[in-house]
Amino acid sequence: MTVQPTTPYLRVDRHRLQRNVDHGAERAGGRRVALRPHAKTHKTTEIARLQLDAGAVGLTVATLGEAEVFAQHGCRDLFVAYPVWVDERAAARLRDLTDRATVAIGVDSVDSAVRAGRQLAPYAVEVMVEVDSGQHRTGCRPDEAGAVAVAATKAGLRVRGVFTFPGHSYAPDGRASAAADEARALATARDALLDEGLEVAVVSGGSTPSWDYLDPSVVTEARPGVYVFGDAQQWELGAMPPGSLALTCRATVVSHAGGRAVLDAGSKALGADRAAYSTGWGRLLHHPEARIVQLSEHHAVVDLAGAPLPPVGHQVDVVPNHCCATVNLADNLWVEEDGSLQPWPVAARGRNG
Amino acid sequence: MTVQPTTPYLRVDRHRLQRNVDHGAERAGGRRVALRPHAKTHKTTEIARLQLDAGAVGLTVATLGEAEVFAQHGCRDLFVAYPVWVDERAAARLRDLTDRATVAIGVDSVDSAVRAGRQLAPYAVEVMVEVDSGQHRTGCRPDEAGAVAVAATKAGLRVRGVFTFPGHSYAPDGRASAAADEARALATARDALLDEGLEVAVVSGGSTPSWDYLDPSVVTEARPGVYVFGDAQQWELGAMPPGSLALTCRATVVSHAGGRAVLDAGSKALGADRAAYSTGWGRLLHHPEARIVQLSEHHAVVDLAGAPLPPVGHQVDVVPNHCCATVNLADNLWVEEDGSLQPWPVAARGRNG
Repeated sequence: MTVQPTTPYLRVDRHRLQRNVDHGAERAGGRRVALRPHAKTHKTTEIARLQLDAGAVGLTVATLGEAEVFAQHGCRDLFVAYPVWVDERAAARLRDLTDRATVAIGVDSVDSAVRAGRQLAPYAVEVMVEVDSGQHRTGCRPDEAGAVAVAATKAGLRVRGVFTFPGHSYAPDGRASAAADEARALATARDALLDEGLEVAVVSGGSTPSWDYLDPSVVTEARPGVYVFGDAQQWELGAMPPGSLALTCRATVVSHAGGRAVLDAGSKALGADRAAYSTGWGRLLHHPEARIVQLSEHHAVVDLAGAPLPPVGHQVDVVPNHCCATVNLADNLWVEEDGSLQPWPVAARGRNG
Repeated sequence: MTVQPTTPYLRVDRHRLQRNVDHGAERAGGRRVALRPHAKTHKTTEIARLQLDAGAVGLTVATLGEAEVFAQHGCRDLFVAYPVWVDERAAARLRDLTDRATVAIGVDSVDSAVRAGRQLAPYAVEVMVEVDSGQHRTGCRPDEAGAVAVAATKAGLRVRGVFTFPGHSYAPDGRASAAADEARALATARDALLDEGLEVAVVSGGSTPSWDYLDPSVVTEARPGVYVFGDAQQWELGAMPPGSLALTCRATVVSHAGGRAVLDAGSKALGADRAAYSTGWGRLLHHPEARIVQLSEHHAVVDLAGAPLPPVGHQVDVVPNHCCATVNLADNLWVEEDGSLQPWPVAARGRNG
């Protein structure tokens, strides 16, 4: 296929992608941890297939909409790692999902466990108790996990185990300490369930930055997402080297106004994510010294740090700050292998509910 | 239609929308300034129709993809307010567009003017010379506009006039000063063209925050976009009161973890835009004291400032920081009128190239 999409478009290096998928599988296997990659990163059935073929036990998703897309494309084991509010409509969707796949959802309070049970029992939707390991987003306190699990069990649901997302690993020098927090919180939660006489089949954690430090004496399942592509955040956190980054946004230089290079990839193509530690709005893969110093919807202003500006009309590869947000903006990923480009649809794009 | 979409979804108050459209038309008419609204905000053919019916002279768009969508839906006058890099493919698309509509594009250097002429002349694509009025993004210096216009004319293109985007109006106390910068830059540019013996049919400016201060003795055409919806940025800049905000993201409270309300609308539904002056990642329309203090892809953590938390399972209306980015994430706007919801497709969603 010799189609050349117009810029800005997302480009995936097929060899780097495969290497990242394989490396993830090896890393999990080497620690005897099950791998359940988070598919919210790629939202793409072809990449889910690569992950499952490499030994992933199933997929993690963030929403019922994502679960439906991946179930329709043959994934048989889905964990919605989210405290789903189970109203009647969500219950109906979950019951439909169980016709196609093994399904688990998150609960993070006694109330949400009771409600999930009332709506779902005796259907075969399992629950995982979410605990807060330090990100302070969702999740009960680890020592409350037993009460939540007991409530779910009494409400007629099978409890599979406990999970957390150590999102505070996204900080300079936060990777190891977040992994330690994760292990501590999950061990406390696991023991709280065991103290109630419950089984704990799965203890699930993991983020891409903390993965190097994951404690396999506690964690039995890892849910990294970003590792398949990498992004400027992983680069700047030191979690992935630039040579492993598989996703870029191909952009055209449209202006040299003010002595800087202005690209046609703005926040509507890259996303507007910018963490406190980020050095800019994104990086250029082949100009490591360059920084995107200003970002609008359709403009990225690049400071080349004194290097010659790429000529107007030339194309460059932008590494977005946060690949999950970037992918969710695109209808297709253009996958490059041996010089040709193939479109892979972002099948679950925008499936937020 | 009694469909209730699942949260998170975008909701438009039809009456507020119409009031904003009408108010924009009246404001332009009262100053004898032509209104050419920027359609990148809504990307929706129904709203474009409302604007044109209210007297807009045409639409502004950011990309050729947007221009194609609106031309296919009957818009006969389109200005691509962007320094389009005119390669052969862009030239072919522009020539096709001229079959359906009057079309102008931006140029911001002698080189880009020469190139546009080489690719496009003698087709009826007009050019507008972009000048930098203080945002420091694209645009030549105002005193260079004459040379750029002469180059375009020599290259065989008709120059319609000059334009700028006073984007530095997006700052506390920046609204009036950015409008003054805009008037000064556009007057200089206009005079530079007149000095070269060229006609200047249009002097185009305008942003929603600066619009109250637009100088009609210089500016003949205004290109606001956000005014149709408003957003938390306009609210916090004092440019639009909360009672005028027409676009919200309807979200469900999914957790009370940590004593805060966690919503199912994250950056993949709201966008991750956060200006330096923003007080959070978005606002709640009916809880003005509340702030979104933490934002992930599928979670917004809300600090209610001591007010009682809305119960888990309740729905709330989030005002996103930047409506243009938010709309670009959604496939439909759900337009509420007298209690019923109609989907309006975001027809130009993702048309970034």
